[in-house]
Amino acid sequence: MTRDPEERLRQHLTQITAPNQAIKAIATQRELDLAKPRGSLGRLEDLAIQLASVQNTMTPRHQNKLIVVCAGDHGVVEEGVSPYPSEVTLQQIANFQQGGGAITTLGRTVGAKVILLDVGIKGDLQPHPARIDAKIAKGTRNMAKGPAMTREEAARSVLAGLELVLAQPEIDLVTAGEMGIGNTTPSSAIACVMAGMSPEEATGPGSGLSPERVAHKAQVIRKALEINRPDPNDPLDVLSKVGGLEIGAMAGVYLGGAIRRAGVVIDGFIGAAAALLADRLSPGMASFLVAGHRSKEKAHQAILGHLGLRPLLDLDMWLGEGSGAAVAMFVIQCACTHYNEMRTLAEAGVHDTI
Amino acid sequence: MTRDPEERLRQHLTQITAPNQAIKAIATQRELDLAKPRGSLGRLEDLAIQLASVQNTMTPRHQNKLIVVCAGDHGVVEEGVSPYPSEVTLQQIANFQQGGGAITTLGRTVGAKVILLDVGIKGDLQPHPARIDAKIAKGTRNMAKGPAMTREEAARSVLAGLELVLAQPEIDLVTAGEMGIGNTTPSSAIACVMAGMSPEEATGPGSGLSPERVAHKAQVIRKALEINRPDPNDPLDVLSKVGGLEIGAMAGVYLGGAIRRAGVVIDGFIGAAAALLADRLSPGMASFLVAGHRSKEKAHQAILGHLGLRPLLDLDMWLGEGSGAAVAMFVIQCACTHYNEMRTLAEAGVHDTI
Repeated sequence: MTRDPEERLRQHLTQITAPNQAIKAIATQRELDLAKPRGSLGRLEDLAIQLASVQNTMTPRHQNKLIVVCAGDHGVVEEGVSPYPSEVTLQQIANFQQGGGAITTLGRTVGAKVILLDVGIKGDLQPHPARIDAKIAKGTRNMAKGPAMTREEAARSVLAGLELVLAQPEIDLVTAGEMGIGNTTPSSAIACVMAGMSPEEATGPGSGLSPERVAHKAQVIRKALEINRPDPNDPLDVLSKVGGLEIGAMAGVYLGGAIRRAGVVIDGFIGAAAALLADRLSPGMASFLVAGHRSKEKAHQAILGHLGLRPLLDLDMWLGEGSGAAVAMFVIQCACTHYNEMRTLAEAGVHDTI
Repeated sequence: MTRDPEERLRQHLTQITAPNQAIKAIATQRELDLAKPRGSLGRLEDLAIQLASVQNTMTPRHQNKLIVVCAGDHGVVEEGVSPYPSEVTLQQIANFQQGGGAITTLGRTVGAKVILLDVGIKGDLQPHPARIDAKIAKGTRNMAKGPAMTREEAARSVLAGLELVLAQPEIDLVTAGEMGIGNTTPSSAIACVMAGMSPEEATGPGSGLSPERVAHKAQVIRKALEINRPDPNDPLDVLSKVGGLEIGAMAGVYLGGAIRRAGVVIDGFIGAAAALLADRLSPGMASFLVAGHRSKEKAHQAILGHLGLRPLLDLDMWLGEGSGAAVAMFVIQCACTHYNEMRTLAEAGVHDTI
């Protein structure tokens, strides 16, 4: 494979083929045949059908769950778009590595393997077995003053997530979480460019801004869009100009999941912005995706609508790190088990009008 | 204890005391202290606080999960209120006992013990290790022609669920599922009496009626209410006149859960009707309850509102048997694990403004 990141990415993407429509039809019939009133398991049925067609199998699987927490910092934090300084990303990482973070706990609860991937944390870190180092830059540059990164860095961030997923053993379900103070700002900017929203529509409180500071954040995004003029038809241009290194890596995780034919779960708002990029990099990618939950960021729902996705859970969660997706993975597990283990009407001998 | 069922029930209910408010305050503080932005785990935080106060412990538990599937038939089925005959209840039970039912599968997926409790199935059944026999009658009588059961039978149905739960080993979370063709009809009738709805507002398609037959079903409910005139302030009167044996048992399961100080999960519409009865039998009982999910029956949401509960999940499920509650139990599991296992800001050394 070539060493040129963009060309290398393009080569990977040729491996993505659509979910299997023949299996989708068979799985749809199986849901009708199972011993229950038709449609009575609601979204569990839809998920089982989707997963069978994505995984290209008659027996969809959930056993091997992977959560890749992508971490990076953001130069735009110097504009005052977050209540926290970039140093908090480092503290989150230290807490994660010591086993006390939210995603450590929730990932363990759902039986997922959790990997931390550093593509752009600002500081220098000691090696740690729970973290994979693929640092591309020590944070992005301030997008309010120019491009957040080069096009090559953008391609490399996507490759980092994608190639990590390709290198993993068996994967049935995969999601990308994130750590990166300031990363709702590039996410909102991506929503503006790729889902046609205004900065005011696309900007929310992140991890806790006052309404005044939300308005300031929207101004910063407007300025970044005016200075950089990202091309909505060129996802790497958008990512490089107003994105983030961990957002690129998240898109890569999704794309890697599609190559591996795993079910791909989106976590929250930042994950949805990354999904917009992934779907533009590989059109049709959205058919692999499950929206794990609805977060409180108002633009989140708009992006999911743009992708044709409806969130599974609505638990008022907005912590990030992949926490909502981890809970959602269990719903997908239930989709698999009912589909594989319930008996059909014929097997059960249940009244045929049920 | 007395043998008079109603007096015996009253004696049991004296054991229910309110959730521990001191622990609630401490748990609320712990959620503020954990290393995450305040409130960012949304309903997981509320659930952890509720469960700690219900279980009367600083370390809420989810490990021992119990699902009691209460089964009974309904004389009112002869009025054409269900698309299925009562025989289908028997077939559901046979499928359950053979391990192929929805709740068998979903209960296993969430790690719950699943018990089938027969309080009123119409047929005679061979003994089976997965089923506990506590049959009170072979189905209720037709409530459109007179009381569904005697007051003593009603009290005994509640006792059956309650005393089953008291007899179980360790329980951390408990829910009641149901099997019983026709049981949305008494559930709607209970909603009319106890939540002030009209038969038209309270009546839905159950397991698949056409709009014309839904209108007929509402007429049958109206007739049953006129003939029986249940007293809304007397839950045993309501249960006996327009209820169901399995609905009484479900209320008993909840009350038993409260006595055991377990988290009590409601499944769907029928479970919500049973919760109305339980909350009237033991005022304040609702503070032990978690509404597992929103089913498609329109009266369900109204009952939950009446109880001050908001459903956790909205997955378009309406199968019954406890299937929605089983999925919801995992969300409660996540509430426990994040609460018990995450580090505090002080432990993590995270920036104190987070």
